[in-house]
Amino acid sequence: MKALVYNGPRDVQVKEMPDAKIEKATDVLVKVTSTNICGSDLHMYEGRTNMEPGRILGHENLGLVIEIGKAVDRVKVGDMVCLPFNIGCGFCENCERGLTGFCLTVNPGMAGGAYGFAGMGPYSGGQAELLRVPYGDFNCLVLPEDAEEKENDYVMLSDIFPTGYHATELAGVKPGDTVVIYGAGPVGLMAAASSFVKGASQVFVVDTHKDRLKLAEKIGATPIDDTEGGGVDEVMKLTDGQGADRGCECVGYQCCNLHGKEVPNLTMNNLVKTVKPTGGIGVVGVFLPEDPKAQDPLAREGKIAFDFGQFWIKGQRIATGQANVKAYNRKLCNLIHVGKAKPSMIISHELALADAPGAYENFDQRKKGWTKVILKPGT
Amino acid sequence: MKALVYNGPRDVQVKEMPDAKIEKATDVLVKVTSTNICGSDLHMYEGRTNMEPGRILGHENLGLVIEIGKAVDRVKVGDMVCLPFNIGCGFCENCERGLTGFCLTVNPGMAGGAYGFAGMGPYSGGQAELLRVPYGDFNCLVLPEDAEEKENDYVMLSDIFPTGYHATELAGVKPGDTVVIYGAGPVGLMAAASSFVKGASQVFVVDTHKDRLKLAEKIGATPIDDTEGGGVDEVMKLTDGQGADRGCECVGYQCCNLHGKEVPNLTMNNLVKTVKPTGGIGVVGVFLPEDPKAQDPLAREGKIAFDFGQFWIKGQRIATGQANVKAYNRKLCNLIHVGKAKPSMIISHELALADAPGAYENFDQRKKGWTKVILKPGT
Amino acid sequence: MKALVYNGPRDVQVKEMPDAKIEKATDVLVKVTSTNICGSDLHMYEGRTNMEPGRILGHENLGLVIEIGKAVDRVKVGDMVCLPFNIGCGFCENCERGLTGFCLTVNPGMAGGAYGFAGMGPYSGGQAELLRVPYGDFNCLVLPEDAEEKENDYVMLSDIFPTGYHATELAGVKPGDTVVIYGAGPVGLMAAASSFVKGASQVFVVDTHKDRLKLAEKIGATPIDDTEGGGVDEVMKLTDGQGADRGCECVGYQCCNLHGKEVPNLTMNNLVKTVKPTGGIGVVGVFLPEDPKAQDPLAREGKIAFDFGQFWIKGQRIATGQANVKAYNRKLCNLIHVGKAKPSMIISHELALADAPGAYENFDQRKKGWTKVILKPGT
Amino acid sequence: MKALVYNGPRDVQVKEMPDAKIEKATDVLVKVTSTNICGSDLHMYEGRTNMEPGRILGHENLGLVIEIGKAVDRVKVGDMVCLPFNIGCGFCENCERGLTGFCLTVNPGMAGGAYGFAGMGPYSGGQAELLRVPYGDFNCLVLPEDAEEKENDYVMLSDIFPTGYHATELAGVKPGDTVVIYGAGPVGLMAAASSFVKGASQVFVVDTHKDRLKLAEKIGATPIDDTEGGGVDEVMKLTDGQGADRGCECVGYQCCNLHGKEVPNLTMNNLVKTVKPTGGIGVVGVFLPEDPKAQDPLAREGKIAFDFGQFWIKGQRIATGQANVKAYNRKLCNLIHVGKAKPSMIISHELALADAPGAYENFDQRKKGWTKVILKPGT
Repeated sequence: MKALVYNGPRDVQVKEMPDAKIEKATDVLVKVTSTNICGSDLHMYEGRTNMEPGRILGHENLGLVIEIGKAVDRVKVGDMVCLPFNIGCGFCENCERGLTGFCLTVNPGMAGGAYGFAGMGPYSGGQAELLRVPYGDFNCLVLPEDAEEKENDYVMLSDIFPTGYHATELAGVKPGDTVVIYGAGPVGLMAAASSFVKGASQVFVVDTHKDRLKLAEKIGATPIDDTEGGGVDEVMKLTDGQGADRGCECVGYQCCNLHGKEVPNLTMNNLVKTVKPTGGIGVVGVFLPEDPKAQDPLAREGKIAFDFGQFWIKGQRIATGQANVKAYNRKLCNLIHVGKAKPSMIISHELALADAPGAYENFDQRKKGWTKVILKPGT
Repeated sequence: MKALVYNGPRDVQVKEMPDAKIEKATDVLVKVTSTNICGSDLHMYEGRTNMEPGRILGHENLGLVIEIGKAVDRVKVGDMVCLPFNIGCGFCENCERGLTGFCLTVNPGMAGGAYGFAGMGPYSGGQAELLRVPYGDFNCLVLPEDAEEKENDYVMLSDIFPTGYHATELAGVKPGDTVVIYGAGPVGLMAAASSFVKGASQVFVVDTHKDRLKLAEKIGATPIDDTEGGGVDEVMKLTDGQGADRGCECVGYQCCNLHGKEVPNLTMNNLVKTVKPTGGIGVVGVFLPEDPKAQDPLAREGKIAFDFGQFWIKGQRIATGQANVKAYNRKLCNLIHVGKAKPSMIISHELALADAPGAYENFDQRKKGWTKVILKPGT
Repeated sequence: MKALVYNGPRDVQVKEMPDAKIEKATDVLVKVTSTNICGSDLHMYEGRTNMEPGRILGHENLGLVIEIGKAVDRVKVGDMVCLPFNIGCGFCENCERGLTGFCLTVNPGMAGGAYGFAGMGPYSGGQAELLRVPYGDFNCLVLPEDAEEKENDYVMLSDIFPTGYHATELAGVKPGDTVVIYGAGPVGLMAAASSFVKGASQVFVVDTHKDRLKLAEKIGATPIDDTEGGGVDEVMKLTDGQGADRGCECVGYQCCNLHGKEVPNLTMNNLVKTVKPTGGIGVVGVFLPEDPKAQDPLAREGKIAFDFGQFWIKGQRIATGQANVKAYNRKLCNLIHVGKAKPSMIISHELALADAPGAYENFDQRKKGWTKVILKPGT
Repeated sequence: MKALVYNGPRDVQVKEMPDAKIEKATDVLVKVTSTNICGSDLHMYEGRTNMEPGRILGHENLGLVIEIGKAVDRVKVGDMVCLPFNIGCGFCENCERGLTGFCLTVNPGMAGGAYGFAGMGPYSGGQAELLRVPYGDFNCLVLPEDAEEKENDYVMLSDIFPTGYHATELAGVKPGDTVVIYGAGPVGLMAAASSFVKGASQVFVVDTHKDRLKLAEKIGATPIDDTEGGGVDEVMKLTDGQGADRGCECVGYQCCNLHGKEVPNLTMNNLVKTVKPTGGIGVVGVFLPEDPKAQDPLAREGKIAFDFGQFWIKGQRIATGQANVKAYNRKLCNLIHVGKAKPSMIISHELALADAPGAYENFDQRKKGWTKVILKPGT
């Protein structure tokens, strides 16, 4: 099969690889029809992780079931399915409580596994023609009859829509709330859309990319251009000096300041400033336990200089971590199905699998207009 | 009336002050019969706050109602009442949701007020013969008929019992959970007791004071002596390498390392290490937004070097802030009343108000055995 | 002042009454500018309650503060305020937990008080020129600067918008859920609108009044005309035989069957049938503890023949009771303010206070098109 | 293998049956070492269900894993395991949210399956030497190293301990609460013990069996003997006329009045009376959707004459249904392991499998002292 393989820093290639196949009785085999490039793929692409050369990338996958293992009871050949980026077993202490992003089975010694991801187990990614899905009955979201028509929406259920939604869950967004979101990338935009799904009264999205802020505005949010600084003051002004009820971090450790320097504590400390006392903050932007190549000595150890005193006095709360996709994907699927959510609106480029290497390059350079790339392996 | 007055750093004095009195129709006047010295009183005593000289200290108060304002409907003269250390109005956006520690009315410009406390409004403390209680109907907990018999238990409802309980609420302690608590001072001990009230299976209490660890053991907790270091490893060993389900911070910014140096990030980073993935951490130890006299440059700005990467990867959550005492004091009062809680067990010294200055000195020096001082202004 | 007075069954009259005035230091006096007639006013109008002749009706009130008591700190003369229909003290065990519909102070011996309502305390209603508001700081919702412009929306915060919202809270409506609502009266319509605020994917509204079903459709709900029966089957069909995720009862004990006979258990048993296993049901339609004039012997004792076995096997849950208006009115006010909610859309008639008696008569006869009447005492 | 087989009403027999065996790759085969008789077994024994003759009874099972299917990853041969009475698939919409008592897979057309139970699927029970466990990785609770020593405690994790605990979850019991429990059978006693695990201040247990009330007292509850009536008044007196904060129904449809007549609405209406306004009621006693042999015409249709008006006015809530055992069994297992729970205290008779028929007869006749029977198939 053809697949996108990681060779090393900033070097990926589409080449022939052995076909994915059923390996266990609980596996499902999927012919991938849509697979996205994610911002977190760039962490690996840039060589800042311990990703092993030779592995297939891709954790945002959707496709057609073409074979099932003998112990698979629910999923049928011919089903169109969307796969959560995190792989769960369904029976460990965390999976049984819905914490499928922290499965204790699939990646022994760690909590959590994923397709094509550094440190998340040996699973091949789906930027390929075929994908093996472990624990298929547990992991496949079987899509409704309009799966093909809305395929570009449904594929977002693999990661960024649930991840944006997770940010709002972690923050505790409730009807009537005001929400401030740092980051207008795909996840930040989905957090904004999710806030409105939940009845937020106002959503402020802070970023420095004008094209992304335009998308935020299209969703109904108030864009805050922080290019010249002043974003914090603007949010405070728009909330009568109180700060927003809730805040979401959708940037992560690679956050840059006005001068393009990475300042990993920038968004978190701004959130503490711009969320009101007793407010909640949800963090889905990725932070690393260590980052040996970082310039900042604290960052090398995975630490940030955090305004803990201010945070404590304000009685705020922070919840973090990757999204438990299965906790949300059924209900978000309903919203797409009835037309109340349209996450495909963030797609900027729809390309063939063969075009993936060029797409990685452009996306990595944050080229203007490259918001979200969807690959179509079948074409 | 006689009252304990703050003159300046490490200088307090019992002297004659103008009688507290009813100032507004919603006030209640209380003859104080029990009032504790709290660890947070020492922050002021040591001169590390902007406490104004001449003010009366004391925010853990209980006494007899001797006069009520004209608009007071519920509280009656003759009631024995315990006063939450934080003062709430009862009608602001925070109080009406039960967030009485963050009242927007009583200390304009800030969220939260208290008796005899730096930066928490102009209210006099209760280490005195008389205390004015604003918004008396809202703030007084009227005690049951055994109020005098169990007065030393009930007075703990003003602060440390609810504060310890709050730590377990913020951490999300549930029946069957394991809990690790940093700090075996009065609040840490109350957090341990509260964990057991909530059905925790095991509670580990980490500290370096052997007398306090003995009290922890008496409560049923597993004491972890961190004097030589190794506390983190011990907790990991006792939880099969997983970490505890929940963690509580009951020390605050003045946490010291093995060599007696203040290391404000020590307990938080140890909590991240010793709480399991997806676990919750409750922080009731005090952290300051700025601490100009600290040696550590980060600490001066109220920052700590926090293991945010580890925290994020583990998908943990932190909730913080002072306890909303009123959210808990009625139910905790029930537990004292039926004999299922006995917080007076932590009292080490019961003294007259006149003895307060000496008690402050001993308590401030962390003299062995000085766990908790209760003052009896009437005697 | 002029006021609408209840003389006896189906006999109300606008006449001169003594001016409402400040009676306690915590009172606020309001010049009423908008006041609605509510479906529950009809229970009294029809003589099925023990309402005392001579009392002023009206519990959905909005107006201008013209005087405040001496102990009022927050509310100012000149504020436009909306009053929750239930009156709370702010300091009893229920009010302090936000259960303001069950205040233990304002109506001794019962849990809950209201303006102008049978069995809910001695408080005069607001279908009058003036209204005395007890515990003004606690009970007044101070409106934003567009209060007059959107007065017909904001007045709905006194009762039916929070009551409809409460139905969805009691039912546990979450994003992506399907919801079935029995009753397309003002409260049912507000429950439908609230379901969409919360991100429901689909809302089915069952009723027999075509004009009301049209309003439901306008809100975005799927109208189910039960005039010929078959509503239950229709809901099951539209939910693939599973039933809806959540259900709301917005009719109450006066529910009638196809032949116009009161069948008080009809909606509840239909809810058990049309809500899926493990689903939640919220009941805000009024049921009476006794109804001596009912024909059905069970109904006389306030009982219904309830499908408890089916309810239990399906593992459903029911939550009931009048809305704790203050728990919701601030956030719903935000939604009106930013234009995301427009509850005035259900108003069918805007009349002067003098027109109230005729309006009662028409509304009581369920005349076509009489959905909701708003009275303007000032005009 | 030897097994207890249901031949027909009041006719059970231990006889030779075909050995249970692995049928699917996800199955686990268990050699049963402990299996209880449950009160709900009597519903079948008495012939009031549609239980098919020839089936093996027994849904409270514990034993040794002696064989595993090829797709079983977690459970190992040699593990001691306790099996939840309800069987879940682990991947349906309900199981993935933890609602394993309402699995949509194992009993098609219904929500929920169980071992050896009428209407709960084709699964054989465990009152036998061998038991086939479907979806073994999901359903087996692997016990700690003291499994054999505390086997009589751990077997209670299959049903009655989690079921009693579920009653308190459904009721919403919180620390400091007062709780009233109707029924002092095994489940009611476990509800009382669970209430104390959760920090209840007082628990009132109402029953008419003096031997069972003694056990309630031993647990720390206040026994209320309702033999002569007056139980309701007694609870009200002990709660100062307010009613308890929470209530639990642990009797079910076969509740009898003073004269031994079945009065299915007795406990529910008493709960409405003795739980305070806004209080929660959890119902784990079994109610049937139809009961053709009942004398009461309402009962035949599965209805009860329920005090809905009183229930509504008090703003109470009811939650119902069988326990989702897996939601609780890990944490309750911890409590047994550390010695904080000892559910075996309710066992009155420990017998060989061969003694089962006699035990059924005695248990069915509610003979004095027959509280709970545990069978030991191996002996």
